[in-house]
Amino acid sequence: MQETIRIIGIDPGLRRTGWGLVEARGNALCFVASGTVRSDDKASLAERLCQLHDGLCVVLDTHAPQEAAVEATFVNKDATATLKLGQARGIAMLVPARAGLAVAEYAPNAVKKAVIGVGHGDKKQIHMMVKVLLPKATFVGDDAADALAIAICHAHHRQGLGARLAALAG
Amino acid sequence: MQETIRIIGIDPGLRRTGWGLVEARGNALCFVASGTVRSDDKASLAERLCQLHDGLCVVLDTHAPQEAAVEATFVNKDATATLKLGQARGIAMLVPARAGLAVAEYAPNAVKKAVIGVGHGDKKQIHMMVKVLLPKATFVGDDAADALAIAICHAHHRQGLGARLAALAG
Repeated sequence: MQETIRIIGIDPGLRRTGWGLVEARGNALCFVASGTVRSDDKASLAERLCQLHDGLCVVLDTHAPQEAAVEATFVNKDATATLKLGQARGIAMLVPARAGLAVAEYAPNAVKKAVIGVGHGDKKQIHMMVKVLLPKATFVGDDAADALAIAICHAHHRQGLGARLAALAG
Repeated sequence: MQETIRIIGIDPGLRRTGWGLVEARGNALCFVASGTVRSDDKASLAERLCQLHDGLCVVLDTHAPQEAAVEATFVNKDATATLKLGQARGIAMLVPARAGLAVAEYAPNAVKKAVIGVGHGDKKQIHMMVKVLLPKATFVGDDAADALAIAICHAHHRQGLGARLAALAG
């Protein structure tokens, strides 16, 4: 009998952090929930990080995922943006880790490859393929769709790992 | 009567996060404690962020500061290093904010100006001036010394603010 694993994918950002939950059972994937945690851009940085933290804590309490995956953020050329992203990403990794979840990291091209079959593609293609892979999925905005794509990527990778372990054991 | 305020200064870093506590009473400054929270570089990033989080929580629980100051990190040209620093900095701001403390940010040159009188200078000069300003201070390493310098900087700035408010009220 295959176990069902509930996975949360997180797409971190200081202004908006997307999250998406799927359940994986063998190769089968099932949509659970998705959403976006926002921070108030008029608040201080410390307050905004608290808002992201508290929002993610509520999501984890509500949906009780067993594993987490976070996008290994694209490092762009704007150092100030990279620093902001790093701060949000620190929170996005801390919250599931403190809840006792293993936190996997995937590069953006690994996420794209898992979802659209190749390591490049635009947001629209990701949206479309998330809808194909999770027909019951509802999501508003890029961040939640990206978070679902990250969760799907983790489901594929852990399934691959499971298959390899089974082959070794067999 | 002037109130005594206990301030924690934090110098964030993924490998080592320095912290230093001072008490300010008017213009008088008094050393309380300092140290370094380390993360295990063999652990996963999520675990390391947890280690920094938990270490800083212990410091706050033990020393009960009333205000916090964090260095507004120098953004360097290495994006990977900037991202790592951002992640550690996210934790360094989150922990005091969640404990209900106001978290001030100071640029490195503001810290140097507060401690050595000018906006530039090396680690050695900061060490020496921290020792002059806080004769009873004991610290091991640059991170704890830098954290004390950040706390001193905040003490100067909040004292200036207090004086200006008193002048306005008077």
